[in-house]
Amino acid sequence: MISGRLQNGLETARQVWSQLPSSDEPESASASAEGEEVFGPRVNGGVESLDYEVIENYAYREEQAKRGRFYVGYSVMVKWFFALLIGIGTGAAAIFINLAVENFSGWKFSLTFSIIQHSYFAGFLVYTLFNLALVMSSVFIVTHFAPAAAGSGIPEIKGYLNGVDAPGILLFRTLIGKIFGSIGSVGGGLALGKEGPLVHTGACIASLLGQGGSTKYHLSSRWLQVFKSDRDRRDLVTCGCAAGVAAAFRAPVGGVLFALEEVTSWWRSQLMWRVFFTSAVVAVVVRSAMNWCKSGKCGHFGSGGFIIWDISGGQDDYSFQELLPMAIIGVIGGLLGALFNQLTLYITYWRRTYLHKKGNRVKIIEVCLVSLITSFISFGLPLLRSCSPCPVMEANSAIECPRPPGTYGNYVNFHCAKDKKEYNDLATIFFNTQDDAIRNLFSAKTIHEYSAQSLLTFLAMFYSLAVVTFGTAVPAGQFVPGIMIGSTYGRLVGMFVVTYYKKLNVEEGTYALLGAASFLGGSMRMTVSLCVIMVEITNNLKLLPLIMLVLLISKAVGDAFNEGLYEEQARLRGIPLLETRPKQYMRNMTAREACRNQKVVYFSRVVKVADVVSVLQSNKHNGFPVVERGHNGEMRVIGLILRSHLLVLLESKTDFQNSPFPCDGSMPIRHNFSDFVKPVSSKGLSIEKIHLTRDDLDMYIDLGPFLNPCPYIVPEDMSLSKVYNLFRQLGLRHIFVVPRASHVIGLITRKDLLMEENEDSATLELQSTSVRAQQPVRRPTYRQGETEHPLLNSLLIQTQH
Amino acid sequence: MISGRLQNGLETARQVWSQLPSSDEPESASASAEGEEVFGPRVNGGVESLDYEVIENYAYREEQAKRGRFYVGYSVMVKWFFALLIGIGTGAAAIFINLAVENFSGWKFSLTFSIIQHSYFAGFLVYTLFNLALVMSSVFIVTHFAPAAAGSGIPEIKGYLNGVDAPGILLFRTLIGKIFGSIGSVGGGLALGKEGPLVHTGACIASLLGQGGSTKYHLSSRWLQVFKSDRDRRDLVTCGCAAGVAAAFRAPVGGVLFALEEVTSWWRSQLMWRVFFTSAVVAVVVRSAMNWCKSGKCGHFGSGGFIIWDISGGQDDYSFQELLPMAIIGVIGGLLGALFNQLTLYITYWRRTYLHKKGNRVKIIEVCLVSLITSFISFGLPLLRSCSPCPVMEANSAIECPRPPGTYGNYVNFHCAKDKKEYNDLATIFFNTQDDAIRNLFSAKTIHEYSAQSLLTFLAMFYSLAVVTFGTAVPAGQFVPGIMIGSTYGRLVGMFVVTYYKKLNVEEGTYALLGAASFLGGSMRMTVSLCVIMVEITNNLKLLPLIMLVLLISKAVGDAFNEGLYEEQARLRGIPLLETRPKQYMRNMTAREACRNQKVVYFSRVVKVADVVSVLQSNKHNGFPVVERGHNGEMRVIGLILRSHLLVLLESKTDFQNSPFPCDGSMPIRHNFSDFVKPVSSKGLSIEKIHLTRDDLDMYIDLGPFLNPCPYIVPEDMSLSKVYNLFRQLGLRHIFVVPRASHVIGLITRKDLLMEENEDSATLELQSTSVRAQQPVRRPTYRQGETEHPLLNSLLIQTQH
Repeated sequence: MISGRLQNGLETARQVWSQLPSSDEPESASASAEGEEVFGPRVNGGVESLDYEVIENYAYREEQAKRGRFYVGYSVMVKWFFALLIGIGTGAAAIFINLAVENFSGWKFSLTFSIIQHSYFAGFLVYTLFNLALVMSSVFIVTHFAPAAAGSGIPEIKGYLNGVDAPGILLFRTLIGKIFGSIGSVGGGLALGKEGPLVHTGACIASLLGQGGSTKYHLSSRWLQVFKSDRDRRDLVTCGCAAGVAAAFRAPVGGVLFALEEVTSWWRSQLMWRVFFTSAVVAVVVRSAMNWCKSGKCGHFGSGGFIIWDISGGQDDYSFQELLPMAIIGVIGGLLGALFNQLTLYITYWRRTYLHKKGNRVKIIEVCLVSLITSFISFGLPLLRSCSPCPVMEANSAIECPRPPGTYGNYVNFHCAKDKKEYNDLATIFFNTQDDAIRNLFSAKTIHEYSAQSLLTFLAMFYSLAVVTFGTAVPAGQFVPGIMIGSTYGRLVGMFVVTYYKKLNVEEGTYALLGAASFLGGSMRMTVSLCVIMVEITNNLKLLPLIMLVLLISKAVGDAFNEGLYEEQARLRGIPLLETRPKQYMRNMTAREACRNQKVVYFSRVVKVADVVSVLQSNKHNGFPVVERGHNGEMRVIGLILRSHLLVLLESKTDFQNSPFPCDGSMPIRHNFSDFVKPVSSKGLSIEKIHLTRDDLDMYIDLGPFLNPCPYIVPEDMSLSKVYNLFRQLGLRHIFVVPRASHVIGLITRKDLLMEENEDSATLELQSTSVRAQQPVRRPTYRQGETEHPLLNSLLIQTQH
Repeated sequence: MISGRLQNGLETARQVWSQLPSSDEPESASASAEGEEVFGPRVNGGVESLDYEVIENYAYREEQAKRGRFYVGYSVMVKWFFALLIGIGTGAAAIFINLAVENFSGWKFSLTFSIIQHSYFAGFLVYTLFNLALVMSSVFIVTHFAPAAAGSGIPEIKGYLNGVDAPGILLFRTLIGKIFGSIGSVGGGLALGKEGPLVHTGACIASLLGQGGSTKYHLSSRWLQVFKSDRDRRDLVTCGCAAGVAAAFRAPVGGVLFALEEVTSWWRSQLMWRVFFTSAVVAVVVRSAMNWCKSGKCGHFGSGGFIIWDISGGQDDYSFQELLPMAIIGVIGGLLGALFNQLTLYITYWRRTYLHKKGNRVKIIEVCLVSLITSFISFGLPLLRSCSPCPVMEANSAIECPRPPGTYGNYVNFHCAKDKKEYNDLATIFFNTQDDAIRNLFSAKTIHEYSAQSLLTFLAMFYSLAVVTFGTAVPAGQFVPGIMIGSTYGRLVGMFVVTYYKKLNVEEGTYALLGAASFLGGSMRMTVSLCVIMVEITNNLKLLPLIMLVLLISKAVGDAFNEGLYEEQARLRGIPLLETRPKQYMRNMTAREACRNQKVVYFSRVVKVADVVSVLQSNKHNGFPVVERGHNGEMRVIGLILRSHLLVLLESKTDFQNSPFPCDGSMPIRHNFSDFVKPVSSKGLSIEKIHLTRDDLDMYIDLGPFLNPCPYIVPEDMSLSKVYNLFRQLGLRHIFVVPRASHVIGLITRKDLLMEENEDSATLELQSTSVRAQQPVRRPTYRQGETEHPLLNSLLIQTQH
């Protein structure tokens, strides 16, 4: 039973409800007449508890009550419309980045190639300066304008979707910094990719749409601000991530699976369809743009900056004997991937602790140094390599050797005799854009193009460059470097297979592909999504079992050493991710032990403002239980009040009152729901910034309308692993630990939650007709039929508690 | 605080623990020394509360304690091994079914074709009798041997994974009935498919593996019985479903998504990888078998019974103008699909209520009648249709007209002049196996093969046949009939597009494909998985956006009328599925109202056997709260005891005791965990079957070791929708509704659950060194680094409660 004063407050609430002029949702208004129902949350169309920091207070319910069925339909429509916009936006961003990168790289390489006809030193100078300029533009944007744009952004997005808001990751400036920073860093030839940043870009676009534009840059629009709950915003960001992957790899299904497997923490099947829609929109946008570019209007883009390798002309089948070398690729991938994670972890840690503390200047110098080294190695090493004679080509082969000037493809003529048919195999992979290099490594019908020596040199150099580049202050993805590294050793293994398994129809390119999959698996530990992405970029379903074999091995090997790249990085950046499963030690702890050292600070229902201020100043708790003394003098916990909501109340002062008793309904609540919405980008209020006069401090606040009346509770001696499951599965922020109950009021079982309309009509009718009124009575004949049905009955009896 | 007598029981428990000779897991044994920890569940490697009917009692914990780390590794290995076996088994079953069906159909059609050269009447007779014999074999198996094998089985599997065990769906006999029944019903030419049954077959194989073989048929093996928890079995069944879809459509990714989207209720990302592995194994098995069959060793199978249509030779691109007819296909699909659901619902209901009650004889007669009608229509209608002259073929076309005798393909010569080049378009789709008919409908480069009249006739006839056939007592899938219906009207629309949009490169086959997608979308309401399956069976990623467009429309249209086919059927069969989201009316109800009419029956900790028997006889409840009086005379709820566990205790009698006080440790628990495992197939014990002597009835049982000490609890006035979320998300069976607490012991927040090893070492050290001992202290340097890290600190402070 609820105590008297609480009952009194509910009375108040009911009076307020009945005063609402615009209450066009009859069930809400009438339901409150029942008394306790007022405390039920009323979130439109949703599983509101699957939400961290849910607003369930009275003001929110009031806001909800104002909204009718029309609003629900409108919000569904807006959700789909936003999914469309996210798809278009992310697709456009991907095309813009690719266009820019390809054109910058194209200019750079064509300029360099034309200069080296005369002087290799001048060529090197131009090449280096071009790279340096691009990289500097990138690092300058990141350090001075959008610091959150550095890195891949995937760990931060993962954290956001897990419930941890890292500051600034979804701002408009981060979006801009990410797009232009990517162009600079990728165009500047660093050992990094643009795929991770594209995921972040998609997430930023989604988040900005969700909050209705950027408030700081006055780009917001009121009619777009439909999504005020964290859950809706998180759903949008999930769509954005999928769109990013779909745009980066042109892999719509892979995008959905990536979002599902890698980034989200809570997944609902309703969301899946919308996410898939977003990905498909991206695919259409990118495809249309690429068709448009085929006409040659996009400068150097024509050759395609998107990673898509159609190796359908390659190896189609595989024999049993090939499984051994493929397994070896898996093992190598696991080892090198785990090593990569470990090295980057050490270096990032060292960099953060010693280097980046010294300010932006150091960051800029560091990136410039890395760029100089990269330019030096990628230009210098091919120079040292002697050229090989071109192989004899088949008559109708599309591949030329050496490739004609100004085109893209295998067999690069670099520092070779001009009249002889020669090519430089190291330049083919090193002195090239990474996308082209990958295409060259994956290429079929080019057996023995590379010497083992060149591949090994490239592997060692590029691996080191990738490790050093990781963690610098530029936007950086790890997909493309991973694919580069993996395909190099994959191709190496493929060369040995070609040499020793002579009679098989083996393509080195297939092994390169498997190598790429193995390294990504060993480093990022993605599984299904990576498989599907690999299949989609190669457009060859037949390789799926092989890719899967390689991934199984490399992930298992990698897991023996450390965690995945994103998890390691998230931990290093201090993003405390809640994993799906409780830790082992939690089995041996109880809920009480988990909160042993806490001093619980209570509020009573009506509190003095001065008390609130002093409590908020004296501790950092984010939530406080609210108690009330009942008729019989016993204390009752009546709910939870959030620090942020208290701060809103203190700042606005509108709900201060003189009397120390619960408000009696004569004063309707003055706040509307949007006051309590947590801002996405800013840090929110703090107690220090709120100024109250002495008069204010002497007044009271009735917390009744603002508290969350029913947070989830657990008994004190529940195992902590069960508590963890509750917390994690429902996405909670606070759980009350309470003493064991003295008695049980009832047991809720499946049957109690499956009451059908007809079955419970008798009981419901007695109590409230208003609740019944809203339930559509569909197919009464069948309902009748079911109650007669023996199987149903027996099942219901079985599941009866 | 836990009361004194409970403390006493824990003392007992500790003594028992210390007596365990084989306790090779030190942390469990020592943890119990702390007292309360004994009540923490100890399930190996898992989220045990994500489980309905979890066994958390003492006997289970004892069993767990006996298992060491070796066991965990072993069980992981077994899980993967089982995934492999499920893949191989399902793949083999699919191949067997396809081989048999294709061969039976092949014999049937070649025999009929050779007879009709002489007499059409004799041909009709042979054709009809052949069909009738096959169909009768199927219905005989189902009615007399495996009644649970009727229908597609997907609603039942969905129910099983949602927590409802329909009797007999996962038995060995059901598996056998499903396989042979499918062969008969599909080979017999009924308007149904073998894809749904394959999903059920996969699930059966998985479940039988999970329980270590069939106990009834003495095929069980002890070393296979690793999976005793419901969750593990459910995971295996999920793998089996994915394997079924992968085998049916040769679509491994589609299989995973189908399992994820359509059948499971709880999904964990760890499971995904294993499910994907299973699907890939299926793909490899099926592919190898088909390669083997290419050499002609499989009789009539060579032409391929698997639905896979490579329409890569077809339409590659689409223009903007085509979107309108495609949208129309979507609308038609939604309307016809919803109508299909509604009609089948009515007919199934009518059939169950009036027809099937009358026994097996009626069922057999019904199926025979349907078979006769089907034979009559599929043979008779093409006879009435006049033949069309063959079109002029391109020189190098692979398609011949009319097709040569004994082959498969388009342009069937049926009742046409023998020397003229003529074909019968209605026979091409009607007088054929369904797989071939679909291939013919999807075929490219065959513009104007069918007349609109033939297609309309076929659509009307086949639609009616499919509706009538649905719900008969044979194994029946709805995928193939759906594809047939959909592709017919799709091809019709395509014909109009070809005629009116003259200049476009339009293929009627593409429209047929879209039509198939639209009908399946309109009827089954699958989204992502259907998209991916369609893409995988056509092996053409470029059509993805079109398929998605059509599905979006058809699902939206269908949803306006009714629920999806599986949901409707599940409801009709009395399978009470818990949906993901709470119903609208739950927002206005509290937990107390949901269990208003319940009379809670308590047990005290030590109960008289006679009392237990009388309580179990007097009601049907499945769970009972157990209370105990503490030192100060106050009652405490100390846990939940399940009816099934009480029955096990009553039957075995080993734990009866003479004293009415908690047992004192001198008697170790005699039950082992496996006694409490719920049998998968049988109905379990019932109170009526347990015979107790008068002496037995006078004894006592101490329930302490057998109860679940901490079921989840909710306060009485929590909104029912929040309760629903708790129940549904965690997969619970029972929730205690308790009064509001008088005080809060603590608040659990993210920070309390993210305690890292170093941070909490101080507090933990004080209390228990044993708990610490098991925690691996990894990377101490980084831990140290993290605690210094400012971002981490600020985040932790932010998330502090």
